Amino acid sequence: MTTPDLGQIAADLENLEETIIARLIDRAQWRWNSNVYQPGRSGFEGETDLSLFALRLKYQEEMDACFGRFRVPEERPFNKNLPNTRRSVTLPQSCLQLTDYDQVNLTGKILASYLELIPAICQAGDDAQYGSSVEHDVYAIQAISRRIHYGALYVAESKYLSDPRAYRTAIDAGDTETLVRLLTRPEVEQRVLQRVTEKTAVLQASAGANTRKTFDPAIVRAYYATHIIPLTKEGEVLYLQNRRR
Amino acid sequence: MTTPDLGQIAADLENLEETIIARLIDRAQWRWNSNVYQPGRSGFEGETDLSLFALRLKYQEEMDACFGRFRVPEERPFNKNLPNTRRSVTLPQSCLQLTDYDQVNLTGKILASYLELIPAICQAGDDAQYGSSVEHDVYAIQAISRRIHYGALYVAESKYLSDPRAYRTAIDAGDTETLVRLLTRPEVEQRVLQRVTEKTAVLQASAGANTRKTFDPAIVRAYYATHIIPLTKEGEVLYLQNRRR
Repeated sequence: MTTPDLGQIAADLENLEETIIARLIDRAQWRWNSNVYQPGRSGFEGETDLSLFALRLKYQEEMDACFGRFRVPEERPFNKNLPNTRRSVTLPQSCLQLTDYDQVNLTGKILASYLELIPAICQAGDDAQYGSSVEHDVYAIQAISRRIHYGALYVAESKYLSDPRAYRTAIDAGDTETLVRLLTRPEVEQRVLQRVTEKTAVLQASAGANTRKTFDPAIVRAYYATHIIPLTKEGEVLYLQNRRR
Repeated sequence: MTTPDLGQIAADLENLEETIIARLIDRAQWRWNSNVYQPGRSGFEGETDLSLFALRLKYQEEMDACFGRFRVPEERPFNKNLPNTRRSVTLPQSCLQLTDYDQVNLTGKILASYLELIPAICQAGDDAQYGSSVEHDVYAIQAISRRIHYGALYVAESKYLSDPRAYRTAIDAGDTETLVRLLTRPEVEQRVLQRVTEKTAVLQASAGANTRKTFDPAIVRAYYATHIIPLTKEGEVLYLQNRRR
């Protein structure tokens, strides 16, 4: 996107909702398996410190880095010291005014929020399906992270351009409260919450008479309300504070 | 599963339908991008022979192998010479009577069928989103492969146990025609085809008013009819031919 198009951004954010919900439903087919989140219990040869989940995320991101994933603004890594891209990637010119995309990296908070979410969507207990659990954890958390960073970066730039003077004044004054007020659209947030609740119900309805595990759509609503929307807004503020003049 | 439970097997196969369909819908959000399937055009440093898709599948499987994925009977690799498992994996005792799970490995045919499927579900042309395209290709083809091998292995064992004498006679006589006849349940196949058509419609309906790309559910039906069901049956025959006495 060379200039931010709020309609396109909104549509992209909507599309990411299905992906997040589908990934969470996939993860919920396995039990919580809390062992996979315990540091030092990965059962992985030569890896004594990390949890199996942390290891899977690290290996995934090392592979993704080789393929150029983190050249994309909204793909922010959870890990540091990743290998260089081995692929020649040609990205479209970006409208974003950041020197370094990692100036907006909320992965630490996303990770913490995700670890709280898992016991809410999964059945309690342990089914020994550790490999599948962490595989789907990684897909889910990557989708959540993409949604948050995409919103943070592109929505903030789009809103900035809609009223540069008001935003610039608040940025220069270090007035975060005004920034948050300018960025907040309660009616849009309510629409998002309503929509993700409905989509979760629809996507789970196809489970029908079979044994696919389901969870209360209100959990996804609450996760959006408590984490995805606030973290997106936090990222928007970070973007604005770091925006090139 | 220490003894095959046809009800559980059928439920597991049904659950895999949602996963396959969701993965295909995800992939269809990008254009065909036929470049990613061309050997030697990966743009990947030091990799002159493979396509970007083949490379992604190889890297994914190398990572998966470290995590023990291919210790699971229904997870058959597309690549050879993968690294050893680095994780201690404790698998439940299996009811399968195979010396080597790769005696039933249909990944070559699955790969060929998948490459034909992509242009049917994706919009034509090129959107330059090569990394995302192959990432989702790999998730989709792994889900398809898991479905086919799971069905091949467990359904075959379950059916064998339901009538060992008839199956053993046909196996020993090398009578593939009789094996196929014994294995075939036309009414079950029709139910599967009907169900995947409906599920595809339901899973795409949630796209609603937004810009998520969709495709005709008849494509999934045809893919099941032409590839998934026949390849599962081919795998069942392979299983029986290789079954330990």
